[in-house]
Amino acid sequence: MWPMPGADRNSLNNRFCVNLRVYWEDTDAGGVVYYANYLRFLERARTEWLRALGFSQQDLAAQHGVLFAVTRVQIDYLRPARLDDELVVTCEPRRVGAASVSFAQDIRCISTPGVLAAAEVRIACLDTRSFRPLRMPEFLLSAFEAQEKP
Amino acid sequence: MWPMPGADRNSLNNRFCVNLRVYWEDTDAGGVVYYANYLRFLERARTEWLRALGFSQQDLAAQHGVLFAVTRVQIDYLRPARLDDELVVTCEPRRVGAASVSFAQDIRCISTPGVLAAAEVRIACLDTRSFRPLRMPEFLLSAFEAQEKP
Amino acid sequence: MWPMPGADRNSLNNRFCVNLRVYWEDTDAGGVVYYANYLRFLERARTEWLRALGFSQQDLAAQHGVLFAVTRVQIDYLRPARLDDELVVTCEPRRVGAASVSFAQDIRCISTPGVLAAAEVRIACLDTRSFRPLRMPEFLLSAFEAQEKP
Amino acid sequence: MWPMPGADRNSLNNRFCVNLRVYWEDTDAGGVVYYANYLRFLERARTEWLRALGFSQQDLAAQHGVLFAVTRVQIDYLRPARLDDELVVTCEPRRVGAASVSFAQDIRCISTPGVLAAAEVRIACLDTRSFRPLRMPEFLLSAFEAQEKP
Repeated sequence: MWPMPGADRNSLNNRFCVNLRVYWEDTDAGGVVYYANYLRFLERARTEWLRALGFSQQDLAAQHGVLFAVTRVQIDYLRPARLDDELVVTCEPRRVGAASVSFAQDIRCISTPGVLAAAEVRIACLDTRSFRPLRMPEFLLSAFEAQEKP
Repeated sequence: MWPMPGADRNSLNNRFCVNLRVYWEDTDAGGVVYYANYLRFLERARTEWLRALGFSQQDLAAQHGVLFAVTRVQIDYLRPARLDDELVVTCEPRRVGAASVSFAQDIRCISTPGVLAAAEVRIACLDTRSFRPLRMPEFLLSAFEAQEKP
Repeated sequence: MWPMPGADRNSLNNRFCVNLRVYWEDTDAGGVVYYANYLRFLERARTEWLRALGFSQQDLAAQHGVLFAVTRVQIDYLRPARLDDELVVTCEPRRVGAASVSFAQDIRCISTPGVLAAAEVRIACLDTRSFRPLRMPEFLLSAFEAQEKP
Repeated sequence: MWPMPGADRNSLNNRFCVNLRVYWEDTDAGGVVYYANYLRFLERARTEWLRALGFSQQDLAAQHGVLFAVTRVQIDYLRPARLDDELVVTCEPRRVGAASVSFAQDIRCISTPGVLAAAEVRIACLDTRSFRPLRMPEFLLSAFEAQEKP
């Protein structure tokens, strides 16, 4: 299904990913990236994945009345990221349901082998007004299913 | 005019202030509080100052169509705050105008003398829909003026 | 084993917990608390739990050469927290190992029944220099085991 | 003096700048970028400016015992940045002293004319151990002076 258009996309064994730099704001007094900030990095990759598929979250909300909310995160922190590291964050849909999607995501450092953090993130499609789960519009569902990996 | 009711208020020479703790999330790899995070601390004090005056920002938006936005910050960083420090943040209105207020705020550590950071923060009253400057409702203006210090 | 001393502790069915307020800094454009920021709240509760047990993370690092790092988080987001909400965050050790501890933590809003987020967080004891797993000093291990809940 | 090497540099009337995207993490419940987060954006531009000059802050600390700390920020917030905006952040040294540098920085949105925020940021060169002001090493001073704009 790849490649998709998108300025931030890079190739990591044919998986969608974004590159980002670790700045002072991301670190803590332990000298490494603060554990909650890995979730910010994961979200940037999911947002760029949506954008690369041609979807604007603001348009989805305004025109289709849907938004995505994270309902579950499981993340393993394997090795720390540090100031100035250049990271690669992947985003792959694994289970696409009628009102939710699970993503496999990992974070690597471009200068060292191996994975720094591995996550599974589940998002739900919600009604923008009621915040209740909503079946995804058909065009979203089929676009996501086309990207689904077993 | 003081004291005002409010669970978070403490006395620092009769000035309004809030106490807060420095956590890992606030620090950076330099071992001290990241410079942008002092602005988060200043905002907590302004929010609690409003709350102590009896104003809910959500009610002001919903019922009166006004919100406050910061239009200028000047901050001097004198000495660093560190992990586990317990800080005291003051909030004093200095110049109350029809559509804006300037606050003098400073940040201290309860265990050491002197000021860690001193700031002047100007907020503007905006229309929630147009984001344009708006004269404050009379009850806000008079409440603020009653707190004004020369 | 409860209660322990500690200014931030409150009683929630005899479980250790801290209270905190949601500020603008915690929210996102969706109008609710940004998903990564719940992990900051969880960390504040773990830090206060350690402090209530009498342990300073800075002293543990300086005098005993140990630090704690999060190695896994699993979190379910059930209902959103919003601006001005007052939250209660619990912290209970569940499985205390020689070099790691798993905590059950949840986040509630004091004004509404039910849980907003439920998490399991595993931390590892690391050597401050090598960042490698290290058996906890005996005084830590026994203090943690005394708090362990089945 | 321009152009300098550097992957993140772009041309804005021949001024050094970095491009960045606004993500959910940067916004608040007002629907715009949270005011403290503009300081994170400013810092990214200063870090990339240093990197483009060939300086690594980690090497400067390890090999030369110096670090930079922000001592003053003055920022005017003129118009809000919003989710998905692509921003351009400039960084120009204006006054290079023996132990400090003042930068003029502004933040724009690539899709709209005008400036969103304009800042002056002063950094000091400090001894990594004592955190006291320190005259910059000669190679830093001359590199900075070569970039100075009146």
